[in-house]
Amino acid sequence: MADDSLFDFLHMEIVSHVYKEQQSGKGEMDNKDRAVCVSVLESMGFRVGQGLIERLTRDSPSFKDELDVMKFICKDFWTKVFRRQVDNLRTNHQGTYVLQDNKFSLLTQLSNGKQYLDQAPKYLAFSCGMVRGALSNLGLDSVVTAEVSVMPSCKYQ
Amino acid sequence: MADDSLFDFLHMEIVSHVYKEQQSGKGEMDNKDRAVCVSVLESMGFRVGQGLIERLTRDSPSFKDELDVMKFICKDFWTKVFRRQVDNLRTNHQGTYVLQDNKFSLLTQLSNGKQYLDQAPKYLAFSCGMVRGALSNLGLDSVVTAEVSVMPSCKYQ
Repeated sequence: MADDSLFDFLHMEIVSHVYKEQQSGKGEMDNKDRAVCVSVLESMGFRVGQGLIERLTRDSPSFKDELDVMKFICKDFWTKVFRRQVDNLRTNHQGTYVLQDNKFSLLTQLSNGKQYLDQAPKYLAFSCGMVRGALSNLGLDSVVTAEVSVMPSCKYQ
Repeated sequence: MADDSLFDFLHMEIVSHVYKEQQSGKGEMDNKDRAVCVSVLESMGFRVGQGLIERLTRDSPSFKDELDVMKFICKDFWTKVFRRQVDNLRTNHQGTYVLQDNKFSLLTQLSNGKQYLDQAPKYLAFSCGMVRGALSNLGLDSVVTAEVSVMPSCKYQ
């Protein structure tokens, strides 16, 4: 329990730090500033994901195909990082996977009214990077995006 | 195991991010720049420590004195964050406590030659902040400093 919140707290701090430094000296942030923040967070997540997957897969047998890799991500990786498995994994069998988490741990702290919906991307960039980093170390180049329609559920593509 | 490395990886990323942004555009960092970095990391740690101790102490009975608080920090708090207990706690009974960890988890990744000794403060600032934040939420104002004489052991004062 407390062990897990360590990651959450640290994640919150990183997000607020990255946004604060970008904003410093300016009034409002424009879209470009926001894009910089997201990309900083994404690349931090990328490296963390890379490191983590190396540890996690140390004792696993090798994967037989892409779907196998995705299942590992949904189950083992997700559980380690977000304390729960992905609720739903769908694929079109052409290389697109949709992971759905209906109670995403980094969003449960936010109120689930509509007014914070535009704040959500801040808190998703890091995890997108982590997933991309993990996949990349397993030999899959990917583009990972996330969307939120109803908080705290979250889809990764 | 892998769960724990999540914190380590994230910590490394934060440290390198904070140092990079401070350095950007300049060649060498001077002492003032370094002090800024340390203080940024320390205050991030402070807030994480505050949040964490609230979770950790939720089900604990209240502490009867300062020493009791320090024992909790050495045992429960340290174990949650750094995966081991403090090796040695000493006090002069006048409000000074020395916590010694002979195998500090954030330093075990560094080579233990002398040449990296001056890099160590980078990796200690965040944890100093965490300890200070935890103590502060338990009602103790403190000054926390850390020193390393032989890696990876580490003393907190």
